[in-house]
Amino acid sequence: MNSTVILIQCADRTGLVASVAKVLAAYSLNIEAMREYVDVEASLFFARLSCSGSLSDGQHLLEDLKEKLPQDASVIINPPSPKKLAVLVTKEYHCLGDILSRNFFKTPETDVCAVIGNHDYLRDFTEGFNVPYYHVTTEDKSKEAFEEEVQQILDRYNPDYLVLAKFMRILSPEFLAHYPNRVINIHHSFLPAFAGAHPYRRAFERGVKLIGATAHFVTPELDAGPIISQQTIKIDHTYTVAQMVEAGQEVEKTVLNRALKLVARDQVFISGNKTIVFE
Amino acid sequence: MNSTVILIQCADRTGLVASVAKVLAAYSLNIEAMREYVDVEASLFFARLSCSGSLSDGQHLLEDLKEKLPQDASVIINPPSPKKLAVLVTKEYHCLGDILSRNFFKTPETDVCAVIGNHDYLRDFTEGFNVPYYHVTTEDKSKEAFEEEVQQILDRYNPDYLVLAKFMRILSPEFLAHYPNRVINIHHSFLPAFAGAHPYRRAFERGVKLIGATAHFVTPELDAGPIISQQTIKIDHTYTVAQMVEAGQEVEKTVLNRALKLVARDQVFISGNKTIVFE
Amino acid sequence: MNSTVILIQCADRTGLVASVAKVLAAYSLNIEAMREYVDVEASLFFARLSCSGSLSDGQHLLEDLKEKLPQDASVIINPPSPKKLAVLVTKEYHCLGDILSRNFFKTPETDVCAVIGNHDYLRDFTEGFNVPYYHVTTEDKSKEAFEEEVQQILDRYNPDYLVLAKFMRILSPEFLAHYPNRVINIHHSFLPAFAGAHPYRRAFERGVKLIGATAHFVTPELDAGPIISQQTIKIDHTYTVAQMVEAGQEVEKTVLNRALKLVARDQVFISGNKTIVFE
Amino acid sequence: MNSTVILIQCADRTGLVASVAKVLAAYSLNIEAMREYVDVEASLFFARLSCSGSLSDGQHLLEDLKEKLPQDASVIINPPSPKKLAVLVTKEYHCLGDILSRNFFKTPETDVCAVIGNHDYLRDFTEGFNVPYYHVTTEDKSKEAFEEEVQQILDRYNPDYLVLAKFMRILSPEFLAHYPNRVINIHHSFLPAFAGAHPYRRAFERGVKLIGATAHFVTPELDAGPIISQQTIKIDHTYTVAQMVEAGQEVEKTVLNRALKLVARDQVFISGNKTIVFE
Repeated sequence: MNSTVILIQCADRTGLVASVAKVLAAYSLNIEAMREYVDVEASLFFARLSCSGSLSDGQHLLEDLKEKLPQDASVIINPPSPKKLAVLVTKEYHCLGDILSRNFFKTPETDVCAVIGNHDYLRDFTEGFNVPYYHVTTEDKSKEAFEEEVQQILDRYNPDYLVLAKFMRILSPEFLAHYPNRVINIHHSFLPAFAGAHPYRRAFERGVKLIGATAHFVTPELDAGPIISQQTIKIDHTYTVAQMVEAGQEVEKTVLNRALKLVARDQVFISGNKTIVFE
Repeated sequence: MNSTVILIQCADRTGLVASVAKVLAAYSLNIEAMREYVDVEASLFFARLSCSGSLSDGQHLLEDLKEKLPQDASVIINPPSPKKLAVLVTKEYHCLGDILSRNFFKTPETDVCAVIGNHDYLRDFTEGFNVPYYHVTTEDKSKEAFEEEVQQILDRYNPDYLVLAKFMRILSPEFLAHYPNRVINIHHSFLPAFAGAHPYRRAFERGVKLIGATAHFVTPELDAGPIISQQTIKIDHTYTVAQMVEAGQEVEKTVLNRALKLVARDQVFISGNKTIVFE
Repeated sequence: MNSTVILIQCADRTGLVASVAKVLAAYSLNIEAMREYVDVEASLFFARLSCSGSLSDGQHLLEDLKEKLPQDASVIINPPSPKKLAVLVTKEYHCLGDILSRNFFKTPETDVCAVIGNHDYLRDFTEGFNVPYYHVTTEDKSKEAFEEEVQQILDRYNPDYLVLAKFMRILSPEFLAHYPNRVINIHHSFLPAFAGAHPYRRAFERGVKLIGATAHFVTPELDAGPIISQQTIKIDHTYTVAQMVEAGQEVEKTVLNRALKLVARDQVFISGNKTIVFE
Repeated sequence: MNSTVILIQCADRTGLVASVAKVLAAYSLNIEAMREYVDVEASLFFARLSCSGSLSDGQHLLEDLKEKLPQDASVIINPPSPKKLAVLVTKEYHCLGDILSRNFFKTPETDVCAVIGNHDYLRDFTEGFNVPYYHVTTEDKSKEAFEEEVQQILDRYNPDYLVLAKFMRILSPEFLAHYPNRVINIHHSFLPAFAGAHPYRRAFERGVKLIGATAHFVTPELDAGPIISQQTIKIDHTYTVAQMVEAGQEVEKTVLNRALKLVARDQVFISGNKTIVFE
C-alpha cells in the first residue's frame, strides 16, 4: 500500500490546515493521520501528515503546497529513509551496543555507516557487527586538528546525523556549524539539572532520589540544545556513584534509542530551543 | 477570545479531513488543534478540533458539517461544560476527598451535584464541602430496590456522569442501561490483572512487583469496560496487603482524577470496547 | 501485640550491629526488621529496628544501649506518635486538601493542629475539616514581624513539624533556626533543576519533557536542603505553563504525602545535606 | 579490601539476628550491610549480610553459624561468582544483544557460556560476540528428543542459570526439574495479565493503556513462577500490535537485565511462589 508522508513548517496564519487538506484532496490523497502544532509565541506552524493513495507527481504536489502556504514554508514530501548515522564514542559501550545490535538486523529507519572513537577501545566490539571503526586520538594535537580528522572521515560517508553515544569530548561551535540540528547527544542527567561534567557525582553529592538521562540536539552552548527525550528512575541513599552510573546506563540506552527512532521517523521538529515531538 | 470545540464520530471514508476543513474555512474558523484517529478494524473516524474565530450560527455549521459527512455521523459543537457528576461511594474517602476538594474551588470542567453512599460513613466529610449526601442502605432490600432508590435520587439531578469512587457494589445491567457510557469506575488493579474482588490480596498472593489502578467505563461485564487511564507503581516483597492498599490509594486518586479530567474535557471517545484518548 | 521501634544514629565503628543485637537479646526483644546504613564519607551509622516482645523498662534499655554505643549516640526508643503538624499555605489548595482529608479520618501517624495562611483564601476550606485557620498577612509589616506572628501561633501548638504546603514565602534563617530539620517543603520541580521561583515557567522555556516535584527539609539556602522524595511525570511540547501547573499539582500532592508519611513513621534520618530513607 | 557475603535461609525463631551477629563478631567480621526478611505466613527467615574484615576460615564460620541456627538452615558464605549463564533464544535479538554486549566486556557477575537457538537465525550475531551458538531444531522430532539435545549441550557447560531470552517454546516439567529455581524467563506482559501466548495482541484487543514485561523463575505452570522484576510503560490507542511489540522490547531488555543482575549478585531469595529481592 502506498503511503505519503508530508512535513510542513512555516509561519502561522489562519486556514493552513484547510489549505493543505484541499490540495491533498485534489491529488486524491486521503489524510490518515495528521499532527499539527502552533508555537504561539513564535507564530510558527508545524505539521506531519501521512496520507494513503498513489502519488504520481511529488514535484507537482510540492509546488502546489508551497503556493498555498506562506512564503519560505519548508515542505518535505516523503523524506529519505533510512537515515545514515555516524556514531562518536569514547569508551562506554552500552549505547553503542544497543545501536549496533539494531543495525545488525537492519531496522528500517537507520543505517550506521561508521563509528569514530577517540580511543581504540571499542574497535573489536564495533567490527564484530561489521561496521567500520575509526580511531582518532586527541593526543598530541589541537582540538581543531582532531575535529578536522573526524570531519574528513565523516565526509566520506555524508551521514544524516551524528550520534554522540557517550562521546566525552566537547565539540567546537565551528565543527557543529557543519551539522546544524544534526548532532544528537545523550547526557546522563535530567537536564537542566547537572549539565556539564560528572553529573552522577554531583547527583550523589546533592542526595537526589531520581537520576535520569536526556537526549538532545547539540548546540554551541553545552547541554543546552533542544531536548528530544528524557526519563528518570528512582534511586535511594544506598547508591554509590558507581551504582548510579550502572543504573543510569540503562536509562541512557533507552532514552537515546527513543530519540533516534523519533528523529529517524521524522517525528521531531525544532522550534527555537525546543522540540516538537509528534509521538 | 472565542474558541469552538467540535467532536466528530462517523464511518471512515476518504477525504473526511478535507471536507471538514473546507466547511470550517467557509465559516472563517481557524483550526488551532486537531486530533483525529481512524479505527481501521472498525472503519470508524474520530476527530476533535478546536478552532479560533467567532461562531455566529452553530446550528447552521452543524448542518453543513453533517451534510458533508457520512450519514449517521455524530457531530457535537461546543459540548456542554461543566459536566455534572454524581459520585457513588462506600467507605473509602481518598478518591472522594480529591474530587470534593477540587469541586470546592469550582474547577471549570466538573460540578459535583450529589454523593450517594451505601453507608452513612462519609456524610460529615461530604457535607463539610457543601455537597448533599444521600445514604441508601443495601440492607433489608433487594438489589432492584436499592438501585431504584439510587436512581430516584439521580433523577433529581440528571448528572452527565456517575463516578464510582470506590463504590464496592456491582450495579445491574438494568441500572447501567440508563447511563450508557456514562458510568466511570476506579478499579484497584492494572486490569485485566486481578479483575473482580480483592485485587490487592490477590496481588500479594501472586507476589507481583507492581500494583496499579485502572479507570474505566462500566459495562455489564465486571471490570471489562473501555479503559480510560491506568498507572502502576513499584512495590516489593515487604508490602503487606494493608500497605498495598495504602500505596494503591495514591494511584487510584491520581488515575481517577486523570480520567475525569479527560472525559470532562471531551478528550475521550469510545470505539467498541476501547477508548480513544486525545491527550 | 507489642512492638518496639528503636532509632540509632552514631559514629560508625566495628561491631555496632552485634552490640545492639546482644543488648536486645538480653531484653528478650526479637528483631523483626532492621535497616541500617553507614555513611562512609561521614563515618556515621544509622539504624532503625523494630522488635517484638514486651518491653517493661524502656529507660533501662536506653541506658544499656547507650553504654554499648559510641559516645554522643542518639538513641530513641518508641518515638512519639502521631506527629503534630502545622501547615503553612498561601492560596493553592491541592496539597492542603490532601493533608486535611487524611487528617479528618485520623490517620495514625499525623495530627494537624493548625493551618496558617498568608492570605485568608483557604479559611473556609480548612474550617470545613474542623481545623483552626490563622490568617497572618504579610502586608504593612516587616518580614520579622510576620514571622514573629507566625511563631506566636505555633508556640500555642508546639508542632513536631512545619509543612510548607505551597507556602510561597521564603522563611528567614532566624525563623528556621527554631525548627531545625523540622520544616518540610514541597517544591514544584525535580531539584536541583529549577530551584527558586517560577519553576514551571522556566521548565516551559527550557522545553523539558519531564516535570516533577521534590519534598525536602528546609535549610537557610533556598531549595537546597536534604531531599526526602521526588517524582517526575512526562509532558510534551503541547503543555502550556498552566497545564504544567495543573499536571504538576498531582505530583506535588503525591510526593508531599509520601514524604510526610516517611517522616512521621520515623523512616527518615538526616546525614549532612542528604536523607537516609528506610523505605 | 576484604568483603564477605553471607546468605541465610531458615525457619524463623526469636533471636536469629542476635545469634548471627554474635558469631560474626567472634570472627571480627563487621556487618556493613544487612537485609533480612521474615515471611510471616511461611515462618521463614531470610538474610543477606555483607561484612568487612578478613575471613581466614570460611568452613569453620559456616559450622559455627549452622550450629546457632535452626536445623536445615541454608547458609552460604561467599557464593561463587561470576554465575555461568546459558541463553536460549528463538529469533528475537534484543534481549540477547543486551546480554552479549555486556558479556563481551566481561561484567563481573555473569559469564555467558553458550547460546542455544531453536532456529539458526541468531548464529552470526552471537558468534560476532565470540560466544558459541548451538542450533537445535524442533522439527521432525518429539519434544523429549529436542529437550534431550538441549540438555546434552548444557551438560557440557554446567551453567548456573538458563536464561530464556525470548525463547518461544514451553519447556516440559521433566526438563525443568533438572534446573530447579535456575531457569529465568522474560515474559512480554505485566503478569498475571496476559499469561501465555500473544500478550501484545491481547493487550491490543483489551485496549489497555499500559504494556509491560515480567522476569520470573520458570516453574511447570506456565508464566506462574516467582516474579523477580516487572515494569510497565504507557501506550495509547494509536499503538498497533507491531508498535506495542517494538515499545515492549525496550522494557523486556531492561527488566531481564535487572533480574539477571539481582540474581547474579545473590540478592534474590525464593519463598514458595514469591521472591524476596534485597535491592
